[in-house]
Amino acid sequence: MLLERQVMIKLIAFDADDTLWENENFFFEVHEQYAEFMTKYVPKEEMLQHLHETEMRNLQPLGYGIKAFTISLMEAALSITNNKIDPEDLSHILQMGKGMIERPVHLLDGVTEVLEKLQGRYKLITITKGDLLDQNRKLRKAGLADYFTDFIVVNEKDESTYTGILEKYRVDPKHFFMVGNSMKSDVIPALEIGAHAAHIPFRYTWQHELAEHNGRYENLYELKHMCELLNIDLLKG
Amino acid sequence: MLLERQVMIKLIAFDADDTLWENENFFFEVHEQYAEFMTKYVPKEEMLQHLHETEMRNLQPLGYGIKAFTISLMEAALSITNNKIDPEDLSHILQMGKGMIERPVHLLDGVTEVLEKLQGRYKLITITKGDLLDQNRKLRKAGLADYFTDFIVVNEKDESTYTGILEKYRVDPKHFFMVGNSMKSDVIPALEIGAHAAHIPFRYTWQHELAEHNGRYENLYELKHMCELLNIDLLKG
Repeated sequence: MLLERQVMIKLIAFDADDTLWENENFFFEVHEQYAEFMTKYVPKEEMLQHLHETEMRNLQPLGYGIKAFTISLMEAALSITNNKIDPEDLSHILQMGKGMIERPVHLLDGVTEVLEKLQGRYKLITITKGDLLDQNRKLRKAGLADYFTDFIVVNEKDESTYTGILEKYRVDPKHFFMVGNSMKSDVIPALEIGAHAAHIPFRYTWQHELAEHNGRYENLYELKHMCELLNIDLLKG
Repeated sequence: MLLERQVMIKLIAFDADDTLWENENFFFEVHEQYAEFMTKYVPKEEMLQHLHETEMRNLQPLGYGIKAFTISLMEAALSITNNKIDPEDLSHILQMGKGMIERPVHLLDGVTEVLEKLQGRYKLITITKGDLLDQNRKLRKAGLADYFTDFIVVNEKDESTYTGILEKYRVDPKHFFMVGNSMKSDVIPALEIGAHAAHIPFRYTWQHELAEHNGRYENLYELKHMCELLNIDLLKG
């Protein structure tokens, strides 16, 4: 046990959306605005359900991010109204989606302090899903680019994604520490390949990112706040 | 002169769209179909011009790829009709854009033979713009994944993009060879940082990718066909 705790961490990767900065709340707000706007055609709950189904169906062909989301907003509005929607309203919906690109980036509490303390001692990278262009834009807006030696955007975060990244970095999983808000994408696959992971829940979690786990992971750190990372023995070395 | 020719190449990067496989012709075809379909509202040339302007305006916020293109198709149809378009037609246009994801991947002539000969002798990667998900899907469909040690998707291909990649690979520009169909994205920025580049034009070039050059580059190879890569002295070593 002691020995294991003394394993040296070499590489720390952070998820970005809802780990470094707020994200899901923007999507949540647009879902709400959209369903509210569409009440002239269809009850809110029905619209939300239909949008969710459309998003899920579009995940495989279109992937994550604002552009895929914008297409889903249009598609769901057309299909739920049987193409009877006023095109003026579609223009409005298009802008609702595209407008998300302009949103400001709000860093989460403690992020800068923690990165400041960890940089130099560890190689820091980010591993995020989503749209390449949008994620890079957020990183720049957030002013965090200098903390990270790499900013990796992937389609999916599963065990093979993490294995591939670690191979490229020639880092053994036991020297790797992943930090993120999603059990499904950030934590479980990293733990499954033998790495360490901290789970820091965000106040909103997209249904799609929920995952069950049975708490059997020894290398899992359940944190309430980013700053608690600095209290982990493994990261004091 | 002789000395320079004897510089050893260590890393060869290929552009993907219209270098490894056909791409621009699909976009060209959909442009045509779309403008044809919209002739019930607006003359074809006017629609094509308006679409082009919409795409250019959306490049900065939305970037490259099918999703951005699909949004531009919808947006241009709405705006050119002053939101008077039949929503049934918008549904059709949405499917026109999304349908491009399903298209087959047609390898260009000579690609497999050339990769077969170069692999093992050089580290081969691809550097491509566009949508992460779509580009990865095309690489898989093309059956080329095993030839490349890395498949890099970027927002823009300029000098700093190439410099960044070479720093990550710890390869000096003089040991780097870039192959692509776009003077603007593949060839000129690579030459400008002191690397070597082969330009292999595709039969269609997107207006946006055209660039003037004055032929002063010593490390530029103008090729008609991918197979001519194998005749370059520099790549025989």
